Parts: sequence; structure tokens; C-alpha cells
Amino acid sequence: MGDVPEFGKVVIFGVGLIGGSFALGLKAAGQVEEVVGFGRSLSSLTQALDLGIIDRVGFNAGQEVSDADLVLIATPVAQMPEIMARIAPYLGAETIVTDGGSTKVDVVAAARASLGDKLPLFVPAHPIAGAENSGAAAARADLYLGKKVVLTPLPENTVLNVARVRSAWEWCGALIHELAPEEHDRVFAAVSHLPHLLSFALVHDLAVRDNSDLFFSFAASGFRDFTRIAASHPEMWRDICLANRVALLDELDRYRAQLDALRDALQRGDGAQLEATFDVARTARRAWAADQP
Amino acid sequence: MGDVPEFGKVVIFGVGLIGGSFALGLKAAGQVEEVVGFGRSLSSLTQALDLGIIDRVGFNAGQEVSDADLVLIATPVAQMPEIMARIAPYLGAETIVTDGGSTKVDVVAAARASLGDKLPLFVPAHPIAGAENSGAAAARADLYLGKKVVLTPLPENTVLNVARVRSAWEWCGALIHELAPEEHDRVFAAVSHLPHLLSFALVHDLAVRDNSDLFFSFAASGFRDFTRIAASHPEMWRDICLANRVALLDELDRYRAQLDALRDALQRGDGAQLEATFDVARTARRAWAADQP
Repeated sequence: MGDVPEFGKVVIFGVGLIGGSFALGLKAAGQVEEVVGFGRSLSSLTQALDLGIIDRVGFNAGQEVSDADLVLIATPVAQMPEIMARIAPYLGAETIVTDGGSTKVDVVAAARASLGDKLPLFVPAHPIAGAENSGAAAARADLYLGKKVVLTPLPENTVLNVARVRSAWEWCGALIHELAPEEHDRVFAAVSHLPHLLSFALVHDLAVRDNSDLFFSFAASGFRDFTRIAASHPEMWRDICLANRVALLDELDRYRAQLDALRDALQRGDGAQLEATFDVARTARRAWAADQP
Repeated sequence: MGDVPEFGKVVIFGVGLIGGSFALGLKAAGQVEEVVGFGRSLSSLTQALDLGIIDRVGFNAGQEVSDADLVLIATPVAQMPEIMARIAPYLGAETIVTDGGSTKVDVVAAARASLGDKLPLFVPAHPIAGAENSGAAAARADLYLGKKVVLTPLPENTVLNVARVRSAWEWCGALIHELAPEEHDRVFAAVSHLPHLLSFALVHDLAVRDNSDLFFSFAASGFRDFTRIAASHPEMWRDICLANRVALLDELDRYRAQLDALRDALQRGDGAQLEATFDVARTARRAWAADQP
């Protein structure tokens, strides 16, 4: 760690929680000279500027990425193909690109379709950082501290480019893991996307009743925790569900089969099966919790 | 509030979290002279004695309840019928009885079957206090402070007996609500029992996979909250599910229909319906959270 930052110019598309925290993390580590931001709304860019997340608002994406050391695409996944297509012709040979998308198969497909011979520069990433709040105002330099970031490197990536992207996330304090894109999407369909869908479904089911107030008035701490993720961003989760549709449908079907089995047990009053199922779950949940840092 | 406690002798069946906290709450309020405990294991009774939850271990239930002012049945719901049948012949004319069961239709049915002409003495109650931990060691004098207790009075109850049971729970700091037993069970099937079933099901579905370690290793804060209730007590939740089988099956079927609709939307890539569903859920979840004390 010398006096010279590892990265000179960093360009960030999407200066919300994910992109903003990445910028603040690199700045806190002293590893970036200049951060240039792009975004959909001028107000969020102005806010990011005021908060010191970015040093400059970008106007010409092609020009800005041509001499950037690092580009982060931290927009909703659905917007990534267009951004990739826009910057591909201008990416410098030494510019590395990463992203913050919660799904990876679709992002990799977009990169393959849009980046052309610049594909080796792109090292996909998924930072696992809870995003109940969103927007530049929620960004924090320590958001990634001790959190996992999953890289899903491509066969076309050079070892050097993977190492440079890894280094950027590590400067933000993240713990790096690697998975294949398909493996990544399957895992997160099960442990993140499906629980979100289930939580949204439960609250929706209550909310549309004529007497929903009665139900909500007796909801307590179990409901509170189970439904915390139902307060997540609808547009973001729409995009994640659509982007990871295949794996999520698989997981949803597995889960529905599981519910069918529990329904049958309940219907026939099979307490032994209910208890055995609950017991396996409790044992696994406790072991998982004991393993958490 | 004078110097004389409202209750002389209180008899508690089941000196775990619910019963123990009731005893400690009444003691902290100075509203009980003596607490006598019954339980399934001598070790939990000894622990309750050591912790000052009970003053004495009871041996003859009939004799102890004959001159008690108040009896609390705080065992798992499945054990209540036998206890009611055992004490019914001995209950004094002035002894009031309440319970801490999470379901009410079945407890009321048991009371109707077992209490005979002593039925008017029994005022069913459900204290809404999270029970992730259980046992006497988890009992706290302030467990019910500011928490809801739902009474489901019977047509046979006198106004006086309802008022006395209400008063006991209020001395523990609880906020009293009243519902019909069927209404109670429907509401809690939806906001408590179903979420528990869904959370157990998710963790079980992951735990039985060959590569469950891979999945658990990437589970993060959303999973943590969604599955906190999957660490709940299997036997207790087996009993609750069986006791509230009819309402829970209804709620489960409603929920499965909701999941089917989301699956169809996902299958056909209907982002608008997904987003609309998530949006209704988020709005309702946020309004609920804003209403919580």
C-alpha cells in the first residue's frame, strides 16, 4: 500500500446504495483519484455530488470510460445491456469493468451480446449487502466491510483482470468468493429471491382483504421479521425475479412441492411428520446462525 | 392499588416462558402472595423455584386449585384437556382460570368438554409475546409489558370473572384485546402460524439437499430475518398447527393460490403484475411498521 491510489479514474453507472458505497469505500481506502458518476436522474447525481460520493457528473459515457481504470455498472440489471452497448466501443484496453447485479446469468448474457471483443475486460460481481434502503443517501463507505462479494469470472477473463476487480472490492472491505454464473443464480434464487417472493406474497395476501386492519393489528415480532424483506424495492425485485426467472421458477416449484407435503401432513393430522420437518429446519437454522460472524 | 395483593394464591401449570413470566410479572407488581407450580419435569420446577418464579412445587393439583384465586394453564395446548379434566372437580367457586395457549377454538372446546359446571370460571387468553426462547430460564417479569393479550371470553363468563382475568394480565403490563375464538384463530393462522410454517418449509427444503452447505454459506440478512422463526420449538409448533388445523389449512390454501398467481406471472414474464403485487405488499408493510410502538 503506497501513496499512489490503485485506481485513477473510476466511472460509476448508478450512484445509489451499491454504486455509492463502492465509491465511498474506495475513497476511504485512498485507492481512487477521481469518481465520475452517471445516473438516470439529475437529482440523484446532484445528491451524490453533494455527499462527496462522486467528484464529477459525467455527460459523455464513451469519452469518460475511454481513459477510466475501472467502470462499475450498478444500475438495476434491466438497464445494464443498454449501458454495456453504449460503452463497449470506447472502453480502453486497460479499463476493467465490473457490476453490482444480483443475478449473473443474464448479466453475462448481456455482456456477451454487447461487449464484443471487450468481453475479457468484464468481471461480473454480486455484492451481498442488504439493500432495504436505497439511493445515494443510504450509501456508506463501510457497506461492504466483512460482506461477501461473489465474482463469476468468465473463461475470457485474464487472471490479471480478475485480480484487479477482486482488489477493488477488497479495498471496500469485502470477502471475495467465486462461483460459476449458473451456480450463483441457483444459490441466490433459493436463499434470497424466493424468500423475497414469499414474503411479498404473504403481505399482499393480507393487504388485499377487506378486514386487513384486523389482521395487521395482531401481527407481532414473528411477522415483523418474516416480512421485513417485503418492504424491499418493487421495481428492483421485479427485475431480479425476471432476470433469474428460470432458477426462481425451479426453486418455487420445489418449495410448492414442500408446501403440498406439509399441507397433506396437516390435513391428515400427521403430527410426527410436521414435527420432524420443523425439527430438521430448526437444527439447520441454529447451525447456520452459529456459523455467522 | 393498596397494600393487599389482588391475588392470594396463584397456581401455574407449565412454568416455562409464558407461565414463568406471568408469575414474575404478578410478583413484580406485588399482586400475588404465593405461586404454586406444576410441570412435567422436576428439573424445570426446581429451576423455577431457584429463580424465584414459584414459591412452591405443587403435588396434588386438586387440592392446590381448591383454594387458589387464580389458575394459569401455560402448557402446550395439547396437554390442556387433561389438566382441565383433572382440576375441574376441585375448582373453588371463586377461583378464576385462564390460559396462555396460542390457539383458542380448541382450548375452548376442551374447556367445554372438561370443565363442566365450572366453565364460567375459565376466561381464555393468548398472550402475544415472542417465544424464540423457551423454558423457565427465559422467563422475565417484563415479558408482557406493552404486549397484546387477546381474551376470547365465553358467553358463560360473568363480567366479573372476565374483569378479574383482565386485571391479572394487566398487572403484567399487557394491553388487553377481545376477539371471538374463531376470529382469533383465523387472524393468528394468517399472521403467525402460516409464516412459521412457511419459514420452517424454506429451511427444511434447503437443509435436505446434498449441497446444502453451499446454499447456507451465501444466505445473508434477508434469509436471517425470514427464517428467524424457523428456529422455533418443533413440538410447540406441531401442536399449534394441529390445534388450528382448519383455519391454517384455509390460510395455506389462500397462500398457495397467491403463489400460483405469482408463478404464472413469472412464467409469462409479466413484470407489471409482479411489480404491482410487490408494491401493494411494500406499501402495506411500511404502513404496518409505522404503526408499531
